[in-house]
Amino acid sequence: MSNENNSTELKGKSLKFAMAQSHFMVGDIQNNIQKMRSLAIEARDNGADIIIFPELALLGYPPEDLLLRPSLSDRVKAALSSLTDINDIVMIIGYPHVDYHGTFNSAAIIQNGQQKGFYHKQYLPNYGVFDERRYFDKGRNQVLFDYQGLTIGLLICEDLWQEDPIKALKDQGADLVVTINASPFEAGKQHTRQALLHKRATDNDLPIVYVNAVGGQDDLVFDGGSMAIQANGEIAHEAPRFLEHLLYASFDIESGQFDTQAKAPLQLSAESETYQALVVGLRDYVNHSGFEGVIVGLSGGIDSALTLCIAVDALGSDKVYAVMMPYEYTSQISLEDAQAQARRLNVSYTVCPIHDAVAGMRHTLAPLFSKAKMDTTEENIQARARGMILMALSNKFGHLVITTGNKSEMAVGYSTLYGDMAGGFDVLKDVYKTQVYALANYRNRLEDTDVIPERVITRAPSAELRPDQKDQDSLPDYDILDAILKDYIDNDLGFNEITAKGFDPDVVRQIIRLVDRSEYKRRQAAIGTKVSHKAFGRERRYPLVNGWSIESK
Amino acid sequence: MSNENNSTELKGKSLKFAMAQSHFMVGDIQNNIQKMRSLAIEARDNGADIIIFPELALLGYPPEDLLLRPSLSDRVKAALSSLTDINDIVMIIGYPHVDYHGTFNSAAIIQNGQQKGFYHKQYLPNYGVFDERRYFDKGRNQVLFDYQGLTIGLLICEDLWQEDPIKALKDQGADLVVTINASPFEAGKQHTRQALLHKRATDNDLPIVYVNAVGGQDDLVFDGGSMAIQANGEIAHEAPRFLEHLLYASFDIESGQFDTQAKAPLQLSAESETYQALVVGLRDYVNHSGFEGVIVGLSGGIDSALTLCIAVDALGSDKVYAVMMPYEYTSQISLEDAQAQARRLNVSYTVCPIHDAVAGMRHTLAPLFSKAKMDTTEENIQARARGMILMALSNKFGHLVITTGNKSEMAVGYSTLYGDMAGGFDVLKDVYKTQVYALANYRNRLEDTDVIPERVITRAPSAELRPDQKDQDSLPDYDILDAILKDYIDNDLGFNEITAKGFDPDVVRQIIRLVDRSEYKRRQAAIGTKVSHKAFGRERRYPLVNGWSIESK
Repeated sequence: MSNENNSTELKGKSLKFAMAQSHFMVGDIQNNIQKMRSLAIEARDNGADIIIFPELALLGYPPEDLLLRPSLSDRVKAALSSLTDINDIVMIIGYPHVDYHGTFNSAAIIQNGQQKGFYHKQYLPNYGVFDERRYFDKGRNQVLFDYQGLTIGLLICEDLWQEDPIKALKDQGADLVVTINASPFEAGKQHTRQALLHKRATDNDLPIVYVNAVGGQDDLVFDGGSMAIQANGEIAHEAPRFLEHLLYASFDIESGQFDTQAKAPLQLSAESETYQALVVGLRDYVNHSGFEGVIVGLSGGIDSALTLCIAVDALGSDKVYAVMMPYEYTSQISLEDAQAQARRLNVSYTVCPIHDAVAGMRHTLAPLFSKAKMDTTEENIQARARGMILMALSNKFGHLVITTGNKSEMAVGYSTLYGDMAGGFDVLKDVYKTQVYALANYRNRLEDTDVIPERVITRAPSAELRPDQKDQDSLPDYDILDAILKDYIDNDLGFNEITAKGFDPDVVRQIIRLVDRSEYKRRQAAIGTKVSHKAFGRERRYPLVNGWSIESK
Repeated sequence: MSNENNSTELKGKSLKFAMAQSHFMVGDIQNNIQKMRSLAIEARDNGADIIIFPELALLGYPPEDLLLRPSLSDRVKAALSSLTDINDIVMIIGYPHVDYHGTFNSAAIIQNGQQKGFYHKQYLPNYGVFDERRYFDKGRNQVLFDYQGLTIGLLICEDLWQEDPIKALKDQGADLVVTINASPFEAGKQHTRQALLHKRATDNDLPIVYVNAVGGQDDLVFDGGSMAIQANGEIAHEAPRFLEHLLYASFDIESGQFDTQAKAPLQLSAESETYQALVVGLRDYVNHSGFEGVIVGLSGGIDSALTLCIAVDALGSDKVYAVMMPYEYTSQISLEDAQAQARRLNVSYTVCPIHDAVAGMRHTLAPLFSKAKMDTTEENIQARARGMILMALSNKFGHLVITTGNKSEMAVGYSTLYGDMAGGFDVLKDVYKTQVYALANYRNRLEDTDVIPERVITRAPSAELRPDQKDQDSLPDYDILDAILKDYIDNDLGFNEITAKGFDPDVVRQIIRLVDRSEYKRRQAAIGTKVSHKAFGRERRYPLVNGWSIESK
């Protein structure tokens, strides 16, 4: 690919990179290829020399066991060769490479109708949400290519998080490094990426083009934030977060510098980025799974209030159906506030009292329960009647049931399996209760009038499954609870480390036990968008049967 | 550890190995250590020189993210050093080794109050149900130790499935190889192990001591079948399958041969081994999760009939509670057969008609459904009412709800989420419908009288959710269905490969679509024992949102 014969006349010339921060749906190779084609043509028409697509863009990320399908190799080859009619722009495309050496997570270089080369990812993450060693073999070689006198080195995602690969590229003469990524969102991640890019650029005196995916895939959201970084570590260009964006950066070969963008994108607050991740995660799950809309049970409480906001922001108020399902213990305040929320957000609102459903069930069970005392069974029946109603509405009218359980509840099992846990997507699954309040206040600040009534935020939380019930009857204050949960779950600390911070050992013990004993509920829970450092689901894999005890150490 | 000074006087002497084929519960280090202690003392008292425990026995297998707990290293060290007071027997113990080089899947050699050495597993499986590269670093070295003039090489599980490690041991002078394993059951696995051991022994002219774990852990069952293999590939000793067993083998140092056991264990038929795996999987899940018993909904059909047999065989008839929940579409035959099953197996039997529960729910929904036509929503309400009743009984009386969905149903989504899928353990989850029949016939053959009434086996299967419903109204014959499902799921074949076998392309397309579209149900399904080559759950990981289409190739 050397163009050295041109290098003299190109002195002082610049190369224009196009960073295709786009959403590529898992498995949907045909549409992903169409999207690449349109973007390549658009970029070329805008004068770009090279367009760069994210990691595994051809197949979407993470494709999981689709990588084991026997037709994968044929599909990928056909797809890549269908792109070779695009001329006058170099394409760097993330794709799964299958040959007799193995299966690789790779980047193809396509130029003038030919695949000019490919790079295989060298560091395969197999921790957290990642299972890349289940599928991929390790690449062994650095890949550099020359374009108009510039030597460009390639890296893929985890490669850049290690020190060696970029150093090796520098040693082999790279003038600039392109890295393609599928880096999922978690709170604060963009700052971490910026710090990493700064370090790698300055340590190696190399400019870096960093292209990230965007959009939701099951429990992951890719948040974009693609960047062009100067060799001195400064950000020359940065794409907006959570949006599809074709970002351009011109690189002056003589000076070895990018031009700089006139206007940097908005830097997002902690609440803002988490809120946007939740919106994108829900939106893409609903749209890609083909549902026309969502249905949500409103309780009058803050979790369902915030979930309703996120649903409306994700899908539009005409696609959100709210149902209030009161019973004996539902307070007048809850009824008023649920209605107020629905009205302020302009969504369909139905009240469906559950008395008959509960009475029918209790009547059915009466002969079997004649000698038994009332306990949480009766509370669960209420929750399950509500779950059944939502599922019946979903079955009849085709909307996806979204659930409203927050991370604090999921952690300690303060929820009813097949009851309030019934549904296909749990919007707040990775959001602690204290964060729910912060996000509710954030959402209210976005508009002149509070879409979540102030009273919903200030009243004591209650499941309203028995008279005068409050969450804090059986749980510590949410400030304490969430602090302990974050240490135990997100930070993986043990009993000793947590109590050393000054928490009451009895409380810590109680909470750890609740978390450990609730694994069976979480195993059957709906997925929800990861926003924290460690989310329930594929990122935290615990056995159900488990004799690990906090007492034994 | 060389004892070469003794080698002359020991000529003609033999070494007695004890293979501790035992169940070590995940996480329960304290009890696992106690068990090791008792077994070591028992073996020593029976004249054994060396006792060998399975892979990771100290922590149980698979420990999953317990391996990331911060106290792991301290707990393991304390546990291992607590065993150093056991003298006059060498112990080889599977354990997780943590040091500044990393975390390893290791075997410790403990002799005369000291840890004499350790071996780190070199090949870490990261496919199928295995995620070992999520936790472990790769060992780099062969380990051999001398005992009474014999040079013994160590391997761990996957190491033996590769050609190189045992060859390297041979090259370094091993006289005998000990391999510790946590090899989960799947149909036919013991034959595969025997063939492998024969090949490795004869290829390298080495006798092998193969120790496997036994017992259930979540969705896996370890089936034992530990063996001592002569260098000529013959099986000298073999432990029974599915049972805890301390198997002894004496090795004559002079002749390089094991003595041979007087009586080989029973070789199990295909039905017998699968049935036993299902029994052990359920038994250990129920016992280890602390439930007093199980409750199961009987429909009069074959799935719940077989599930009831397995539950009784696993737990005893006094711990099994059967509930028949008839509705309008329940036939008289079903009522009679359900009662007959319960009576023949001598379990508690309750009839709980669901008319009131269904009527209450339908009354509650009537205002919302006034303009809607009847459809599967009403069928799902029946299934969910039954699920709710079982869960209420579970909540009230503390029994685990076991579900009865077979693999064919789970595959095509022929089941109701939160309805018949409600429960903590799905006994037949990995058993295709055609195998359900085979296992039912097998179970009936075990006793003089049929515990499953013949009519349950011969009548056409039906969910009885509407008048005259039959499974085959909406699905192909189970022979065809299961053959296609096995190709698509167990054998990972694609549309082209399956139709090339002569199946109707329209049927294949319909079935693949159903499988792909039902992933969301399976994601929230109860776990169940893996018995096939590829089980749903951790062994088959598909995205929920997924644009992969059979048409595109």
